[in-house]
Amino acid sequence: MPRHWKSILECRAFDELEKLSSRACDLTAAGALNPSRFKRYVCQGPLFDLLYPCQRVNSEVLGALQSLADECDLVEQFVQMRAGAVMNRIEGYPSEERQVLHTACRDIFSKTPASEAATNDAKRELGKLRIFLSQLRDGTHCNAQGETFTSLVQIGIGGSELGPRSIYEALRAYTDPAREVFFISNVDPDDSAAVLEKVDLARTLILVVSKSGTTLETHTNEKLVRVALENRGLDPSRHCVAVTGASSPMDDPDRYLQSFYMYDYIGGRFSSTSMVGAVMLGFSLGYDLLIEFLEGAALMDVAAEQRNIRENLPLLLALLGLWNHNFLGMGTVAVLPYSQALHRFPAHLQQCDMESNGKSVQRSAERVQLNTGPVVWGEPGTNGQHAFYQLLHQGTEYVAVEFIGFRRSQRDVDMEVEGSSSQQKLLANLLAQSVALATGRKDPNPSRNCDGNRVSVVLMADQLTPKSMGALLSLYEAKIVFQGFCWNINSFDQEGVQLGKFLSTEFLSVMKDEETVGTTAGDFLTAAGLK
Amino acid sequence: MPRHWKSILECRAFDELEKLSSRACDLTAAGALNPSRFKRYVCQGPLFDLLYPCQRVNSEVLGALQSLADECDLVEQFVQMRAGAVMNRIEGYPSEERQVLHTACRDIFSKTPASEAATNDAKRELGKLRIFLSQLRDGTHCNAQGETFTSLVQIGIGGSELGPRSIYEALRAYTDPAREVFFISNVDPDDSAAVLEKVDLARTLILVVSKSGTTLETHTNEKLVRVALENRGLDPSRHCVAVTGASSPMDDPDRYLQSFYMYDYIGGRFSSTSMVGAVMLGFSLGYDLLIEFLEGAALMDVAAEQRNIRENLPLLLALLGLWNHNFLGMGTVAVLPYSQALHRFPAHLQQCDMESNGKSVQRSAERVQLNTGPVVWGEPGTNGQHAFYQLLHQGTEYVAVEFIGFRRSQRDVDMEVEGSSSQQKLLANLLAQSVALATGRKDPNPSRNCDGNRVSVVLMADQLTPKSMGALLSLYEAKIVFQGFCWNINSFDQEGVQLGKFLSTEFLSVMKDEETVGTTAGDFLTAAGLK
Repeated sequence: MPRHWKSILECRAFDELEKLSSRACDLTAAGALNPSRFKRYVCQGPLFDLLYPCQRVNSEVLGALQSLADECDLVEQFVQMRAGAVMNRIEGYPSEERQVLHTACRDIFSKTPASEAATNDAKRELGKLRIFLSQLRDGTHCNAQGETFTSLVQIGIGGSELGPRSIYEALRAYTDPAREVFFISNVDPDDSAAVLEKVDLARTLILVVSKSGTTLETHTNEKLVRVALENRGLDPSRHCVAVTGASSPMDDPDRYLQSFYMYDYIGGRFSSTSMVGAVMLGFSLGYDLLIEFLEGAALMDVAAEQRNIRENLPLLLALLGLWNHNFLGMGTVAVLPYSQALHRFPAHLQQCDMESNGKSVQRSAERVQLNTGPVVWGEPGTNGQHAFYQLLHQGTEYVAVEFIGFRRSQRDVDMEVEGSSSQQKLLANLLAQSVALATGRKDPNPSRNCDGNRVSVVLMADQLTPKSMGALLSLYEAKIVFQGFCWNINSFDQEGVQLGKFLSTEFLSVMKDEETVGTTAGDFLTAAGLK
Repeated sequence: MPRHWKSILECRAFDELEKLSSRACDLTAAGALNPSRFKRYVCQGPLFDLLYPCQRVNSEVLGALQSLADECDLVEQFVQMRAGAVMNRIEGYPSEERQVLHTACRDIFSKTPASEAATNDAKRELGKLRIFLSQLRDGTHCNAQGETFTSLVQIGIGGSELGPRSIYEALRAYTDPAREVFFISNVDPDDSAAVLEKVDLARTLILVVSKSGTTLETHTNEKLVRVALENRGLDPSRHCVAVTGASSPMDDPDRYLQSFYMYDYIGGRFSSTSMVGAVMLGFSLGYDLLIEFLEGAALMDVAAEQRNIRENLPLLLALLGLWNHNFLGMGTVAVLPYSQALHRFPAHLQQCDMESNGKSVQRSAERVQLNTGPVVWGEPGTNGQHAFYQLLHQGTEYVAVEFIGFRRSQRDVDMEVEGSSSQQKLLANLLAQSVALATGRKDPNPSRNCDGNRVSVVLMADQLTPKSMGALLSLYEAKIVFQGFCWNINSFDQEGVQLGKFLSTEFLSVMKDEETVGTTAGDFLTAAGLK
């Protein structure tokens, strides 16, 4: 019988934080952003520093957040999760009842992994992948003409696309220029058609990713691509590779060149460091950089077990987010990377965060009494400055901002224009925005007045590399898990999406049927001009 | 002296709507989604239908919204805007004091355009463009080797990128396959480097877009690209084309092959149908499809002058949004196109909406007493279903959803899998989600219970074509303008972004200076490891 975990609402520190929130520190006051604040409000984690002078916190608030973390055993729960506790459950009701072990995929550098069995699974799949990748290089695996594969199309949706794609885009500067990767995700037939127009199928590996082996979109797109292969006179079983659960309908050596396994203790949105991301990354980056990526992720997992919140980067980020969301009332979080390569990373976080923590029921099966997961969105800076930042500075919706920056660019192609490089301009803008949001500016012209007290953090690393990308990914995974613990919700199921799936089959059958009368589906289809 | 416009707060209908909101219609009640509701709650506009059975409205609410529209003279203001009224102003304070005439760019089909002078400007630039495009085709404009141009790189940021890019992506199925378009926007040096790695500069036109001719990012990226051209032994003045204000620093025939003009009566975020979008679209789609695109936009502008809100698609969409935002308390709007081709359209709306309506001051210079522009975000379905829809169904944040769908796909490459085509699956999912959000489902397992009463609209057209894309663009432009009128704000300035620009120059100068002590910039740069 697992022990009872508390939500923050049951903590003594919760009341204290409520009191403190009514007099939260005023960032617009003279001297508020003083030298000592910049010095003290930095948390150094693996590869990243978290700078938080522009949060409305002081030492009292940080003390209360530490108490909250202690009372809720946040770190203890994280340790238990990594060790294989059954965390994916709702007390007294049927639920998935699973371990949560995405961290095991990268716990391959320690002599004493937190969950040995799962890490052994990961090592076995990585071993298979290393051999497979070298067989692609040496031509053991090739097309019917004996040519090597130069492209890979990953077919998958949700966690089988968003995380892997955002990491691929982030690390394109490091990919083999002779190899290209494409993604097909949407059941929209224009998505697959647009990709199939671009690739040379004869030299393309098709990587089909679905844990269950039955995901509607993935299954449909795979069939479409298999027909396209056959129409080109190609043998799908020479081109198709599967990432799926052992003994799923897709685990079939007759139909796939090779199967890599994913396990039920890893949720889709947390699966980027499993074979779901690793096969494609191994193909494009090579095995060694893939391992560096995993190493970055592993370092952050270890750092997340530090009890002092001021030395635990993911936990501190989680608690500052909680402060903004539950105590200062901000309903959305904007993730704004000052790095064009991270342009899809906010979309990955949208899934990882909102699917994990967009819940209304506690693990105890009681209804939550607090707001849970926020809406997460974002675009790269400086682009966003010319788009939605107007609202961040002067709108009536208050948004909690998370900036991400890198001291050096990836490609080292830069030049000085009017006395500064583009990278300097980029970073100057990032920090300037953080200060502008915080301090605001009094102006006698009311339309030019900025109230300030709009909060942000800055995550800063040296450079966006495979290793720092791994750290950034697991930093956010841990942040999301910690916030779920705070609200005492199950961050690992997604029961809310079942109803839509169920109703769509009803709509499909009414669409195909002659009969229209008397059903909601028929009425709606008729109104939409689809019957 | 312009007349005094009301905000909705000054309207009698406002109080009525407040009362009605406390007993807003319950979509989960038995029979709530009845046949007559599906029939009545459809608004047919040009190319698009707006289906709104899944809004928490009834005839009383719609009546009060009509009164609101009448009391605030919303349509009258729109008519005046199109006719050239000076709408970009704040009473009694220095402001831009400009007309707002983006609609004039497509008012080229009427014998009596609403603003003749501006439409004549637009026609003149279109005439120049038609000639320029044919000169590109016939080789009058070519590179030094006499070869035609096969690629175009558009350098621009904000409105000079987001709208044009989202439209280009939406209409890729219609573009000339022998011509490619790329965009450089971010001052991040990795953005330009990644694009320059991909293009053959010798056969590339560089289209530089900046109204002022001084936008930091655009200016910097242009210099970077000019150096790259020179390093390849190419003459920039043969490759570079400008879209800029007449007599801006960029209006220089010695440095550009050709200049196209944009005018100060068109804001960046509303400029997609001006030369800002037209040159690139003309290059990739051809002149005739460009005109179809403009025609779709023009049709929607005319429809927006209809006084009956139930027959005015953009106005109805605006008022339903207002109802959800100001009366039912939803702080964010998710725009969810069931079309992969529209994958960047939500990012365009993020700018167009949030930069326009993220304001706190009325046109009268008084502070607003209502929440103004919401946070706008979104990703294509069905992808989103596997990402953030969990929160839409079961989260504690309520989100107003705007679905967009098309009866037919663009490319007509489709097949039946398990008895239905991909397009059918796509549309079945769209409508099913709308119903699932509205009705919810009672379940004894609390983690499977969906409360329902989560609202959505469906925008449905036959197919995503140049013409319907034009209509969709101007539909949202008009929606945003109408909401700004409701809040009595100036939707056409962006004073809130000035402070960040100003501070970034301070950060830059501290970055380059040896001196660090005693400034906020110095302290922050040091903390970030940048000094």
